[in-house]
Amino acid sequence: MRILVTGGAGLLGTRLIQSLLDTQPTIDGRPITAIMSLDIGPCPIGDGRVESVIGDISDPRVVESALGPDTAVVCHLAAIVSAEAEADFERGMQVNFDATRVLLDACRRLAKAPRFLFASSLAVFGPATVEPLAENIAPMPQSSYGTQKAIGELLVNDYSRRGFIDGRVCRLPTIVVRPGRPNQAASSFASSIIREPLNGEEAICPVASDLPLWLSSPRIAVSNLIHALTLPADRLGDWRTFNLPGLTVTVSEMLDALERKAGAEARARVRFEPDAAIEPIVTSWPGGLEVKRSLALGFGADRNFDDVITAFVDDEATAGRTQG
Amino acid sequence: MRILVTGGAGLLGTRLIQSLLDTQPTIDGRPITAIMSLDIGPCPIGDGRVESVIGDISDPRVVESALGPDTAVVCHLAAIVSAEAEADFERGMQVNFDATRVLLDACRRLAKAPRFLFASSLAVFGPATVEPLAENIAPMPQSSYGTQKAIGELLVNDYSRRGFIDGRVCRLPTIVVRPGRPNQAASSFASSIIREPLNGEEAICPVASDLPLWLSSPRIAVSNLIHALTLPADRLGDWRTFNLPGLTVTVSEMLDALERKAGAEARARVRFEPDAAIEPIVTSWPGGLEVKRSLALGFGADRNFDDVITAFVDDEATAGRTQG
Repeated sequence: MRILVTGGAGLLGTRLIQSLLDTQPTIDGRPITAIMSLDIGPCPIGDGRVESVIGDISDPRVVESALGPDTAVVCHLAAIVSAEAEADFERGMQVNFDATRVLLDACRRLAKAPRFLFASSLAVFGPATVEPLAENIAPMPQSSYGTQKAIGELLVNDYSRRGFIDGRVCRLPTIVVRPGRPNQAASSFASSIIREPLNGEEAICPVASDLPLWLSSPRIAVSNLIHALTLPADRLGDWRTFNLPGLTVTVSEMLDALERKAGAEARARVRFEPDAAIEPIVTSWPGGLEVKRSLALGFGADRNFDDVITAFVDDEATAGRTQG
Repeated sequence: MRILVTGGAGLLGTRLIQSLLDTQPTIDGRPITAIMSLDIGPCPIGDGRVESVIGDISDPRVVESALGPDTAVVCHLAAIVSAEAEADFERGMQVNFDATRVLLDACRRLAKAPRFLFASSLAVFGPATVEPLAENIAPMPQSSYGTQKAIGELLVNDYSRRGFIDGRVCRLPTIVVRPGRPNQAASSFASSIIREPLNGEEAICPVASDLPLWLSSPRIAVSNLIHALTLPADRLGDWRTFNLPGLTVTVSEMLDALERKAGAEARARVRFEPDAAIEPIVTSWPGGLEVKRSLALGFGADRNFDDVITAFVDDEATAGRTQG
């Protein structure tokens, strides 16, 4: 059986594919014969079982071509990120909303309902009046990205209830520390303020130092996505949307951990410069979500932010050795 | 200024148009010059200010033709009802989801963002663990109708936040007592078990007698829709979705009120026959919603179910005189 991963060239997509190859010879007892990445660029993994479809997911023909009769699992990670979806409403609707629906409808036409993992986000929520935000609180998104993700959640649940797919929705915390360069996510700074100082570079923090963020390392996020994918359907209950575990950490606390890891000079490389485009989006997200149900289902959690930084440094060192 | 009412030939649409004509010479200080009804049949109101566009709202050209440059208010009531949306998934998506989006996008292209009233439903909710269900509880719909309405709510809020429209979402209780004949709404029985016995006819109740329902009379529902339409935008806050007030009444309590009004022989005309298509939909809805925020904003409520029956009998008598 084949797996389709949309956004397979991105950070989480690439790590998800690598982790599936490394740890999951089978899903539900069926051997994984191939993993198809659908993205605007090729998946960087050099492995004969990985194929890349390069194209725009908002083109229905591209989606159709990426699904085959033996596709049994779909991991839908592709999205236009938050600040971009806010700046370009049409593009956000096309990618985050229309493409999700096209993909769901293509899945529905498969002979057997595929397992369908949908990456949602804490951005479905507006500001929390109390934190952590209870699991059954209504999404009242204050961004178009959050709205589009919240709509996707509803569709995945209804398509699952009708038996068109076997869906699982994971609301991801902000993923920190991302390797590479900043992107258009409003939360991109949360990685920059750790990554750049560790690399001896300056970083700009566009929000106040006391802002609490809800964070997950890429490692834990990927292992949780795989956990969601491999949970038996009868354990999920009637509602298939899960808040993935995260850490509530303020910007100051992140910088404290950076200082413990890399010294005061690293911390001094972060400048605070409020950004009128970023701040309203990020401050509209809750700083913590209740995750009792996820923990009871066996989802994992980062221990603390110091470990998140250490994991990033280790992963970078491994990547450096692999490339070198 | 013109008003567009989709579903203008239906019960609520017709009464909303009549009430606008009777009570609202202006909205926001601007005189109402014409009300356009868009529906599959003509609006039955004989008044020179009412025009009917007859067509299928899922056809974008029909929607475009119903909106003019002077359309300042849109009341979007048209929908495929619950049991029909469950039986015909594609049709439900077309009418309840695609048409809503086409209408919102057409509104967005108007020179001035119109006021936009969206009729949602208690069906966005799954079963309540406690009743009344708190106002900030997440919609976890257990029907495609509820899913489509929940998606519409999110779109109306995001389009409002972006300033494309000035939206107001009203979650209607089950409307009882509807005049006329049964329809394909799963809740249609809730009117039948009162209306038919009052007319000397038999009625079938497809759910258990102890099931609590969340009900509103058409009178109160229409006055609440007009209230939502005329509330100043600055009183609405960040989130534009409101639970309209209702009454929590069990089927038994409804029949008790019927018996008080029309005697034991009327009650005896109701037979209980479980229906496997209707029961799962109706029992998935909560029997009561919290409405503190709506009441604080001046929305009205029925006093008790006896008054709801009396209002129905009075309205029928008036309609009879008007026709005779």
